[in-house]
Parts: sequence; C-alpha cells; structure tokens
Amino acid sequence: MVTDYFLDHIEQLRFEINEKLQSFPLDSEPKYIYDPIRYIMEGKGKRLRPIIVNLVGSVYGASKDDLLNAGLAVELLHNFTLVHDDIMDNDHLRHGKATVHTKWDDSTAILAGDGIYAIGQILITKVKTNPLKAVHAFNKATLYVCEGQAYDKEFEHNYGIKLDQYLTMIKKKTGWLIGFCAELGGVLGNQPDSVTEELRSYGLNLGIAFQIQDDILEIFSDSKSMGKSLGSDLIAGKQTILTVLARENNAKGWKQKWNEAINSDIKIALENLREYFVDNGILESAENMAKKYTESAQNNLLIIPKEKRGQLEQLTEFVWKRKK
Amino acid sequence: MVTDYFLDHIEQLRFEINEKLQSFPLDSEPKYIYDPIRYIMEGKGKRLRPIIVNLVGSVYGASKDDLLNAGLAVELLHNFTLVHDDIMDNDHLRHGKATVHTKWDDSTAILAGDGIYAIGQILITKVKTNPLKAVHAFNKATLYVCEGQAYDKEFEHNYGIKLDQYLTMIKKKTGWLIGFCAELGGVLGNQPDSVTEELRSYGLNLGIAFQIQDDILEIFSDSKSMGKSLGSDLIAGKQTILTVLARENNAKGWKQKWNEAINSDIKIALENLREYFVDNGILESAENMAKKYTESAQNNLLIIPKEKRGQLEQLTEFVWKRKK
Repeated sequence: MVTDYFLDHIEQLRFEINEKLQSFPLDSEPKYIYDPIRYIMEGKGKRLRPIIVNLVGSVYGASKDDLLNAGLAVELLHNFTLVHDDIMDNDHLRHGKATVHTKWDDSTAILAGDGIYAIGQILITKVKTNPLKAVHAFNKATLYVCEGQAYDKEFEHNYGIKLDQYLTMIKKKTGWLIGFCAELGGVLGNQPDSVTEELRSYGLNLGIAFQIQDDILEIFSDSKSMGKSLGSDLIAGKQTILTVLARENNAKGWKQKWNEAINSDIKIALENLREYFVDNGILESAENMAKKYTESAQNNLLIIPKEKRGQLEQLTEFVWKRKK
Repeated sequence: MVTDYFLDHIEQLRFEINEKLQSFPLDSEPKYIYDPIRYIMEGKGKRLRPIIVNLVGSVYGASKDDLLNAGLAVELLHNFTLVHDDIMDNDHLRHGKATVHTKWDDSTAILAGDGIYAIGQILITKVKTNPLKAVHAFNKATLYVCEGQAYDKEFEHNYGIKLDQYLTMIKKKTGWLIGFCAELGGVLGNQPDSVTEELRSYGLNLGIAFQIQDDILEIFSDSKSMGKSLGSDLIAGKQTILTVLARENNAKGWKQKWNEAINSDIKIALENLREYFVDNGILESAENMAKKYTESAQNNLLIIPKEKRGQLEQLTEFVWKRKK
C-alpha cells in the first residue's frame, strides 16, 4: 500500500533534486550553450530515476554525496536523451514547456544535449564508491538507450512490428536506464554483482511496466496528454503497446479503425480509439502486461532484506498505479 | 627536421588505427544506428589525436592495450563532435565523403553521434592505468569542445569579434581536445600532474597552431578545400584567423572587399580574397601566429627527456608545415 509517509518522502527527494538542479553551478558564457542548459535544468519532471538511485542506495547505506552526484548524473543523462529525442520526433512540448529545439533551434538543442551529457559524465566520475563500475554501467546504459531510440525510429510507420520487437525496443529505450539506476544504488552501496544484477532486473521490469503504463496514459489520461502534444505518438506512427496489441488481436479491424481515426478530428479520433481499445479488450491486455512486469519487479525486490524493502515496494506500486 | 622514418612511423600508426576502427566489433541491429556508425568508422581522417596519445604514451612506456583503447576513444570523441558539428554547420562533405546527415538525415546523425560517443566512453573506461583520471579528463575535454562549438555558433556573422575572442573559441574548440590527448599519454604512462599538465599545454599550443593553419589552408590550399565545400567557413560567416586579422588591420577596407566577394562567383571571390590577404600582410601575420604557437609547443616538449622527444618534435613541425 502506498502510504502518505512514502508520498511525502519522494516529494521531499524530488524537491531536493530540483533544488540541486536549479542551483547547479554553471558558467554564464558561452550563452549559446549555457542558456538552454539552464532552461533544461529548470524544467519539470518526475525525477523518477534519481529517486530510484536514492531509495536503492539508502537501503545499502550509500553515502549522501555519492547519491547526490549519481542522482544528478542520471537525471542529466535522461534529459540529454529527451532533448535529442524531441528533435528527432519533432515534439514541441515537454512537461508543458516548449522543447529546446522549439524555443531555440535544432543546433542549439543538439549542442545543449551534448553538453548536459558531458556534465552528467563529470558528475558520475565523482562518486567515491566503485566509481569505475558506476561509470562503465552509465555508458553501457547510454548506448542501450540510443539503441532503443534507434528501434523506435526504425519502427515508425512500420505496421508489421510484433509484440516481441516492441518489447525489445522499450526494454532498451526505457527499461535499461531505470535498470541502471537501481543497479547504481547497489554499486554505490558496495554490493556484490549477484545483488546489483538482481537490482538491475528490478529496474528493468519496473521500467518496462512504466513504459507500458506511459503508452496507456498517453491515450487514456487527459492530464498526461496535455503536457505533450495530444496523442502525438500515434500521429507520428510510433509503436505503442495499444497499437501493437490491437494489430495482433485483429489486424483487419484495427486497420479500418486506424484509417478512420487518422482522417478525423484529433479529439474525435482519440475518443473512437479509446472506445475501440476498451471494447476489444486491448486496454485490459495492456494493463495485464504492465501488472505482470510490476509483479516481476516486486519479486526481484526479495533480494533486499524484508525490513528494508518497504519504500521500494511502495514505489513499484506507485509507478504502476500512477495516473500521469 | 621531419624524417622519412618519422613519416613512415605515423603512417603505420594511422594504418593500425584505421584497421581497428574498420574491424571494430559492432552489433548489426538496430541498423538505424549501426549503419551510420559503421560508415563513420570507415571514414578517412588524419587520426592526429590518437597519434598524439600514442607518441606521448610511448615516451612513458604506457601499455599497448591502454594506448589502443585510449586512441580509439579520442578518435570516436572527435568524430562524435564532427558528426554533430556538420549538422549544425550544414556541411555536406567531410574528407570527400557525404556527411552522415546528408547521406541519411538529421535524426540519424544526432543518434549516431550520441552512440559513437557512448562507445568512446566505454573504451576510455577500459584503460588499466589511472582510468578515473583518464575518464574525468575525457569528459572535461568534451565539455570544452562543446563550449568551443557554442562560441563558434554564437560568433557566426558577428563582425565585431576580436582576436582574443577568436583565440578563446579555437582554444576550446580545437586546442583542448588535442591538449587532452597529450595529457592522456602522460596519464597512461603514470606521470605526475606536473608532467601531465605541461603535456596538456603542449597539446593546447599545438592545437591552436593546428587550427590557425587549418583556417589558412581552408583558403589557400586547393587540396584542403576540395575535401569540404569550397570556402564554406567563409560563406557561413565563420570567424577565421584571416577574417579576424583583416578586420583588425583595416576594418573599412576589409568590409568593402568582403562585400565584393560575397556578391561574386565563389572561385573569383576566393582568388580576390587570397590576393587581399597576401597584399595586406594578413597571411603573413596569421602564419607568424601559427609559428609562435608552434614554438611554444616545442618549448613545452622540454619536459620530456631529450633522447625521447624526437618523434614529438617532428610531429609538431609536421603539423605546422602540412599542406592539407
């Protein structure tokens, strides 16, 4: 059960991370790169990744300084991928604010993304416990995220993509980084590989569940859609859990529905698609998959002593039940 | 004096680096990212940066494996910045081949650049001697290169830029990475900070001389211009040593010459500009500056025992005297 105490705790962590990001010491020149980097650092976000580093690291008594540097590093890595993805996907809104390439231009966004990643790298090299392990895993995770984004682009408008290909994509695009965050908490708490690997599996399963939920919320939650362009993933021909399952369920029926949708007003299209996903059990199947991965994540948590895993169990439930 | 033995030696190093890049183990999927990464790795280049790591590291008995991993890492870092810069500067040719964003598109080039940088990072974490120092300096250099590129973009079409601003820009954009390469050779040879810092100064001076020479060759060497678009930097309103010095020498005269040039055929414009730079002593001033930085670089080399610095002295002379 998600308690008020837990919610207060992660709100407090989020507050601390935001404060550190906003007061991060940056040069003022050259403005061409530091103005957008400052803008990115002042952006909103769930801060899920540093929260995971923090909760896992705290289980194993990792030092406060290491958790701070590592937490900022993973958040900057995440933001670097978002800034570049937003260019590639031509998304204009992120958490209700103009994306960097929209507010400035593509060149500025490319360079600001590169810079924020380099700053993240500098921060991760500063951890005192197992720094080399941390840095190596940080970069392996980056490469996997790039591979995941490559699949995402490769699969655009490809209506032959199967469920297993979709899962490969989200595992790399979203799962690995969250898996790395959980692993990193263990690395900073000086745990053996047997433990850090299980923690990584925890984050991987949580990340897959998170992305499936995200795909669902993109269509079914108005508050979610409002921060981005409404249903933008669908319009961009992105593979989502709902479209992949709808196609596997009834390729012909879905194709017809889809063609109707893309030829009508976006709000009406969204209503019709929602109805289709509900009536044909697609939403239910997707929710069951998110549940299955959430349960696997909960099972991975058994590696943590019982009296210490409460916060992470709540986080796992919280991620699954979130409405935005 | 640059000997045939030295030229053979760096040709051999270049050959080895190219071979390692071309046979670098990469996954084949997703093709969206690995096809362009393979294309980048098969590209041509002077391989100056890994050659410097290698020559400096060899002075101090660094291990062959470390020099290999570090050499590839710096070359990939350099290529990452080139791929992204080519998008920002809209350059279509690099070493006579289509740039990545020209052959594919911007999204592919952004992602391939990110991926190749992550691979470079993974390689630099593999060095056995002082890996943390190496990784930290690697990322500091990256951030400076980004800052240098930011100045480069910020200064475009700004006809008030002074010599000191130009020098700040090229110091960061070109100097720091070459400085880092020389430093890295010392780090891998387990030298104290007093030595690695002087080595970095060597590379920094060499890098500044290299960039000034590059600006000169961009205008005065046909073979150089042929690999890129002819005089493309000038057309893009970039600050170069020749335009900055021409402005400081005679702002009014230069402005008039420049306005004539941009309104005429590119080949005729180039001829006229060459004539102006020669007749007004601009070329000579620029060459003297390159010489001055080259001499400083040679002085920095005195930190290396006399009997061991011959190859680097020749490299320094070679960089200064190159014709392409």
